[in-house]
Amino acid sequence: MSLQQLSANKVFGGQHVRYEHQSTVLNCSMQFAVYLPPQVELGKPLPVLYWLSGLTCNDENFMQKAGALKAAAELGLVIVAPDTSPRGASVPDDPEGAWDFGLGAGFYVNATQAPWAKHYQMYDYVVKELPALIEKHLPVSDKRSISGHSMGGHGALICALREPQRYQSVSAFAPVCQPTQCPWGEKAFSHYLGAERETWGEWDASVLMAQATQHLPMLVDQGDADNFLVEQLKPAALQDAAKRAGYPLTSRLQPGYDHSYYFIASFIDEHLRFHAQALKA
Amino acid sequence: MSLQQLSANKVFGGQHVRYEHQSTVLNCSMQFAVYLPPQVELGKPLPVLYWLSGLTCNDENFMQKAGALKAAAELGLVIVAPDTSPRGASVPDDPEGAWDFGLGAGFYVNATQAPWAKHYQMYDYVVKELPALIEKHLPVSDKRSISGHSMGGHGALICALREPQRYQSVSAFAPVCQPTQCPWGEKAFSHYLGAERETWGEWDASVLMAQATQHLPMLVDQGDADNFLVEQLKPAALQDAAKRAGYPLTSRLQPGYDHSYYFIASFIDEHLRFHAQALKA
Repeated sequence: MSLQQLSANKVFGGQHVRYEHQSTVLNCSMQFAVYLPPQVELGKPLPVLYWLSGLTCNDENFMQKAGALKAAAELGLVIVAPDTSPRGASVPDDPEGAWDFGLGAGFYVNATQAPWAKHYQMYDYVVKELPALIEKHLPVSDKRSISGHSMGGHGALICALREPQRYQSVSAFAPVCQPTQCPWGEKAFSHYLGAERETWGEWDASVLMAQATQHLPMLVDQGDADNFLVEQLKPAALQDAAKRAGYPLTSRLQPGYDHSYYFIASFIDEHLRFHAQALKA
Repeated sequence: MSLQQLSANKVFGGQHVRYEHQSTVLNCSMQFAVYLPPQVELGKPLPVLYWLSGLTCNDENFMQKAGALKAAAELGLVIVAPDTSPRGASVPDDPEGAWDFGLGAGFYVNATQAPWAKHYQMYDYVVKELPALIEKHLPVSDKRSISGHSMGGHGALICALREPQRYQSVSAFAPVCQPTQCPWGEKAFSHYLGAERETWGEWDASVLMAQATQHLPMLVDQGDADNFLVEQLKPAALQDAAKRAGYPLTSRLQPGYDHSYYFIASFIDEHLRFHAQALKA
């Protein structure tokens, strides 16, 4: 496992660095972005927030648009932003090039079906391979939290609910809360996981939450002017599951906000402080 | 003069709105973006910061990437981001589609040469037509400041130096300080203004500064890891002119920063506070 640095930019006294590496679990070359705050120079390993982006994004959207790096610099948080799917000429895509499936739309699951299973193992990538790589090569501790937006909010929730021992806290912006019951999720899961819907539940945050025994601090923000709210996102399903499971979920409806990065930017500082508190506890 | 709203996003309690309108001075349809902070609801007209973007940009780059809107919301500043050139099928472009001339590269001058003069009147657009439109239709005062990046930093400086009575303050990130003596400026000016180099000086910040009689608060930041620093940007020319003219220029070299929006993001809050102080004085 080696890392090739693609670029670096100084920002808020730290460094935004893009890397490329050969992923074993994804069978392809991958790029990701890291923000290293100025505190790396103090020599003490820093905690890491993993950020999972939404449909059509890659490693660059969050770093460029979220306005998160000022607070990360103040809080001494490393942020790692992976890509949203395997990439490359050998990786199969939606036959019609749709934006909600295939490239840019890995949905953070481990695919079981051909031709997807060879590359689309995004869950193992973001939960295991990438953190191992980060913790081997960069000045970070093994304290991890996870957040994301939309498809990436779904990803953050399922990672934290499936393997809570790996994370200190989880948050999400406008997550796909019940992918087994919405068009984006049904399309993706039927291809990646096959037609047997019983197998889908292990990748659905609302299903996983109902079974959760280990609880993490969890914060979810959702804008009420989000065009995808009713059909795709379904925050009530997660709230209901949390209530039934006694899971301490903080789920907020933010009046007037939509699905864009302008919404994320408006609340990302609160999320970073939420994670910093858990990571440094 | 009428405005058509293209989109709106709530952000930091205010609104990011994109508009389209028919520009008289540019002879084409133009788009621009406005940030209206939450204080517009208090009913008192707010001061405006005009932001001029650099080569290849349009009205969206600053709003998405600068991370400026949190401070604008706190300070009660309206921000207006125009496009960087006239647009549309009838507008001539560089014959080879170069990124440093033509579309996306209006250089904020009033062109005098065919075929450019019919549309490329960006100075009159950003200094006169657009502020008149903004002040007619939006809840703003006639207190204006101006800032920009690279080509847009040049634009901000020449606007403020040519018509200081229209602005309260001016700042720039990595501005093209001496366009009459660098490749970007020489290419653009020779086309827009013609071969007579004597006419170019009225669009060169370092030349204008030497003649300045009315002084504004002026802040310039430049990264010392900027790839364009030596060949294109030449901050020393502006510093020398300021020294000779007795102009109170604050010009800072920021160690390690490059030409990207990561540099702008790192210092935009300081610039906004600088302008807010002048606008509210």
